[in-house]
Amino acid sequence: MADNLHFKYARWQKLPLPAVSLTGGFWSQWQDLNRRVTLHHGYRILEEAGNLQNFRIAAGLSEGSYQGQIFNDSDVYKWLEAVGYELHTHPNAELQRQADEVIDLVAAAQQSDGYLNTYYQVAEPGRRWTDLDFGHELYCAGHLFQGTAAYTRATHTTKLLGIATRFADLICDTFGPDKRQSACGHPEVEMALVELYRLTGKVSYLELAKFFIGQRGQGRMRGWGWLGASYHQDRVPVREAVEIEGHAVRAMYLNAGVADLYLETKEATLLTALERQWEDLVSGKLFLTGGVGARYEGEAFGAPYELPSDQCYCETCAAIGSVMWNWRMLLITGEGRFADLIERTLYNGILSGLALDGQHFFYINPLLSRGGYARQRWYPVFCCPPNIMRLLASLGQYFATRDEAGLQIHLYNTATLQADLGSERAVALKMQTDYPWHGQVAISIEETDGLPWTLRLRVPEWTQSVTVTLNQQVIEKPQTDLGYLMLERAWQAGDVVELAFSIEPFIVEPHPRVDAVRGSVAIQRGPLVYCLEAADHPGVDLMDIQLDEAAPLPTQWREDLLPTGIMTVRMKGYVLQMDEQRNHLYRRLDSHGKLSRRPIQLTAIPYYAWANRGAQAMRVWIPRAVTLSGG
Amino acid sequence: MADNLHFKYARWQKLPLPAVSLTGGFWSQWQDLNRRVTLHHGYRILEEAGNLQNFRIAAGLSEGSYQGQIFNDSDVYKWLEAVGYELHTHPNAELQRQADEVIDLVAAAQQSDGYLNTYYQVAEPGRRWTDLDFGHELYCAGHLFQGTAAYTRATHTTKLLGIATRFADLICDTFGPDKRQSACGHPEVEMALVELYRLTGKVSYLELAKFFIGQRGQGRMRGWGWLGASYHQDRVPVREAVEIEGHAVRAMYLNAGVADLYLETKEATLLTALERQWEDLVSGKLFLTGGVGARYEGEAFGAPYELPSDQCYCETCAAIGSVMWNWRMLLITGEGRFADLIERTLYNGILSGLALDGQHFFYINPLLSRGGYARQRWYPVFCCPPNIMRLLASLGQYFATRDEAGLQIHLYNTATLQADLGSERAVALKMQTDYPWHGQVAISIEETDGLPWTLRLRVPEWTQSVTVTLNQQVIEKPQTDLGYLMLERAWQAGDVVELAFSIEPFIVEPHPRVDAVRGSVAIQRGPLVYCLEAADHPGVDLMDIQLDEAAPLPTQWREDLLPTGIMTVRMKGYVLQMDEQRNHLYRRLDSHGKLSRRPIQLTAIPYYAWANRGAQAMRVWIPRAVTLSGG
Repeated sequence: MADNLHFKYARWQKLPLPAVSLTGGFWSQWQDLNRRVTLHHGYRILEEAGNLQNFRIAAGLSEGSYQGQIFNDSDVYKWLEAVGYELHTHPNAELQRQADEVIDLVAAAQQSDGYLNTYYQVAEPGRRWTDLDFGHELYCAGHLFQGTAAYTRATHTTKLLGIATRFADLICDTFGPDKRQSACGHPEVEMALVELYRLTGKVSYLELAKFFIGQRGQGRMRGWGWLGASYHQDRVPVREAVEIEGHAVRAMYLNAGVADLYLETKEATLLTALERQWEDLVSGKLFLTGGVGARYEGEAFGAPYELPSDQCYCETCAAIGSVMWNWRMLLITGEGRFADLIERTLYNGILSGLALDGQHFFYINPLLSRGGYARQRWYPVFCCPPNIMRLLASLGQYFATRDEAGLQIHLYNTATLQADLGSERAVALKMQTDYPWHGQVAISIEETDGLPWTLRLRVPEWTQSVTVTLNQQVIEKPQTDLGYLMLERAWQAGDVVELAFSIEPFIVEPHPRVDAVRGSVAIQRGPLVYCLEAADHPGVDLMDIQLDEAAPLPTQWREDLLPTGIMTVRMKGYVLQMDEQRNHLYRRLDSHGKLSRRPIQLTAIPYYAWANRGAQAMRVWIPRAVTLSGG
Repeated sequence: MADNLHFKYARWQKLPLPAVSLTGGFWSQWQDLNRRVTLHHGYRILEEAGNLQNFRIAAGLSEGSYQGQIFNDSDVYKWLEAVGYELHTHPNAELQRQADEVIDLVAAAQQSDGYLNTYYQVAEPGRRWTDLDFGHELYCAGHLFQGTAAYTRATHTTKLLGIATRFADLICDTFGPDKRQSACGHPEVEMALVELYRLTGKVSYLELAKFFIGQRGQGRMRGWGWLGASYHQDRVPVREAVEIEGHAVRAMYLNAGVADLYLETKEATLLTALERQWEDLVSGKLFLTGGVGARYEGEAFGAPYELPSDQCYCETCAAIGSVMWNWRMLLITGEGRFADLIERTLYNGILSGLALDGQHFFYINPLLSRGGYARQRWYPVFCCPPNIMRLLASLGQYFATRDEAGLQIHLYNTATLQADLGSERAVALKMQTDYPWHGQVAISIEETDGLPWTLRLRVPEWTQSVTVTLNQQVIEKPQTDLGYLMLERAWQAGDVVELAFSIEPFIVEPHPRVDAVRGSVAIQRGPLVYCLEAADHPGVDLMDIQLDEAAPLPTQWREDLLPTGIMTVRMKGYVLQMDEQRNHLYRRLDSHGKLSRRPIQLTAIPYYAWANRGAQAMRVWIPRAVTLSGG
């Protein structure tokens, strides 16, 4: 094992997972929920739904037929990955025991030549590698490799690593320039192979990732439905891609893998292709929540500006994949815009995926519900829940990075941070904040060597002003770069930097080409997108509401409204009074007067918190009381 | 054979197909195109795509494996049905020969016990009736029966009838209260069995239709995707249905079958269930074009007011199914609102399905295209094209009905009409009109017996006034009933009724709850919905256009624009000038001024005619230059 966390061509370097501890506040609550509830729920589901039984059957330890989706092994591996992160920061005997049992099962199921996929072993023996387009074998292998990296780094054990490398070696023997020419219809193995290369130092894994990335866009895959080859990013070669398209999770995972390949090879065409797609994403295909995937059909991206509120897909996994990709873009470029998108996605499009009880999940995260849509404890396709588990367990990794010049802080939460800046220059910091509810952040230097280094602090895109003090002295016109404040200094233990971001609620309007939300606006405060939920507006149909955008937007902390407490935003608006005439679906424009409306006090809650009081109607985008189109 | 066109409980009775001849004008052009081009194209496709070959293989006349979709037999039967209608009104030796060859193949493929389905015979022998939910066997049988009814009435031959009744008898022996308890996942056989009952007089077919209709909503079907049991109208029993839901073609075909059952049994619960669903349809789930099916996902209805312009499905088959259902509702009730919807659907949501060249088809009919969407000569699922063929070939049947009191005219086109009002009271009329381009219709009585009878003439929903003259004398305040003018008189040959419907273009606004087109309006003239197409607005992105709704809407006949000539509507509007600031997908509301815009002259064309000049961008709903939401 040659575990290497130094990404060769990263501008900023990852910290080891335990370097950042979220010790209180917002995200600490969620990590704690994951630790107490969600991870255990995940294990129960893997048993109930037959995922673990599939391994027993494949191992010859049980009789029976294969259960569930063709890619059910991946749920097991994602859960293992989550447990790996958890054990790395919070050792836990029960999780350790469960994980070791699962690993024993995985080991028992592996075939003598290294092959491992319980679907093909149990349900379609003899047919391995016969349906790369839809069979998900390499996808499952990728999740095994990612789980292995997390678990091995946490425990320094080698059992899972042995399983993974035997399988990876078989894959290396099977696929390649002079061997089988194809790639998995669902990208995933690419980033996983790069990670396994980092873990083991084995160059053939990196080379295979590069090979798989080069296989797309050759017109070999069968395509899917109306989307055809774009469904699995096979319409054009990766290096020529301009548009972000097709199945959203596939696109995000692929781009994370391509970014990983760039991080180890610096092949410029890869980065420019990623940057083109990123521009395409943020200029027309991104939901306000950070959600991605406009269409149920193929769980896919739509056309530019095709961003429906009700029938958007915004799969939780796709949002998580977006964070994975944007994280790598941030490491490559050091540009705050990628961290901004990570933050937007974490607080909104991902967090909505998990109920406040820690054991119900959204697969799809719409921005408008007419009611009746609820989180489920299980889905036949159970990809999202263990994805949330691994994200929350590894969340600390996204908070800070280092380079030889210093430390970069990308996200804010009460936390402790430690880093080695190189040449054994150890630094340690404490961060104290009520973010995202309040805009103040205090960062104290706990340990440093007295020599100068630079502390970079991201200025979030949503703030209109930031005040910076050092030891209670305001720093006038602090230096900034790429979205970060740059504070260079011979830091001393006891130094305290305080940030105050202005965090008043504000109104967001969409690009005029976003047809689906024309004439509507949304409320945001800090990184949180807000929504109206029917629970706070009894007797009112949310479809009939308009916002008086000229009125003030006072906030109110409501400890009582939801278990964790939330900051609400109050607004003035109107309820349209429907009448008989108006009940026509279509009518002549000139045949009516103005609809009467009555004033109403509106209460907005953070989007992530909706549907925790029943399957309520909800809307993020609110029609404006008076709209000048394009004005 | 006991061919019976008298529907026992119809308020108005169908005329035999040859009773109405469309002898000129709008629909005559389309029928002629169908006759000259489309039907022949259909035959070629059935050969090219392997549909006919499947029959040869099933018959043992050829070797090979089954080609295409599981329900490919139905394309053959729908084509046969279309040819049947065509031969009934326009005998044609080539079509007759092709049809007879096809019937010989169908006969050769039928198994000795009457079973007939080339997919199950060739690809899954021994597995007949094992997957009623998705296997489409009864669906294909239904299309055989409908084709048989059309062909048999046209030719008075019995070969196809023998095939159909042998199969129907086998189905009667297989399914029923004391036999197999299930129904086909795709409704179709219900209306077909009622039709076969009408053709043969065999009551067991009617009883089986009733049995199948009763099978739904028992929770037996597997359901599909996120839609579950609602996908195939299996969530609630047919008699309890309130919402129109699930796969749109399935819903329309089922309701046509239920209406057929009512027409022969007068079971009141059936009609009230249909009326409830119809209200649900027109109050929130109907597109302006008459298209139905809001979602790609499951090709299905969405929630009330979920009516996206771009990602609507509006399958051509579903619109045709809507006409089938509404036609039966019209026969049952005599209410003009059903004929209004038939007209809206024919001129817009169906007609867009066929190119002006007669051999390219839309499967999906969106109300907004950002460009790149074109009709295809073939689809892997080829259901829509032969559906258009049978609709056009049988179009005359929808124009008029009779009862003992007289004749009812529902649609307008240059035509000759003949009817027997009962007791051998033969009447004949001529209709002359430039409808839908102009609002004048002249109807002359050609033959009558001198005794009084009532001529009913539908007043279309879109007109704001109608002038009626009899022999050039204006009839002041003519009697009306259920959307029809009622002219009772001892008619004489040579009498001429002239109608003048006001037909100025007008602006349509949607219900304020239709989120997807908020702040937008559409243009309609007569029954035609209009659209903007990029071809008429070079250099302009249609997404940036606004309509000045206060400006006049002059019309202009353009012989040159498209092969058939069309009436255009001219409008004033604006093009928004995008700027750098505005290119953000989301931004603070208060951070910009009003976008600048330049005036533009807009040209709207009938919706059905779009995409005949390349795969142009197109939009039906146009943002208003100034919008008072809900005002």
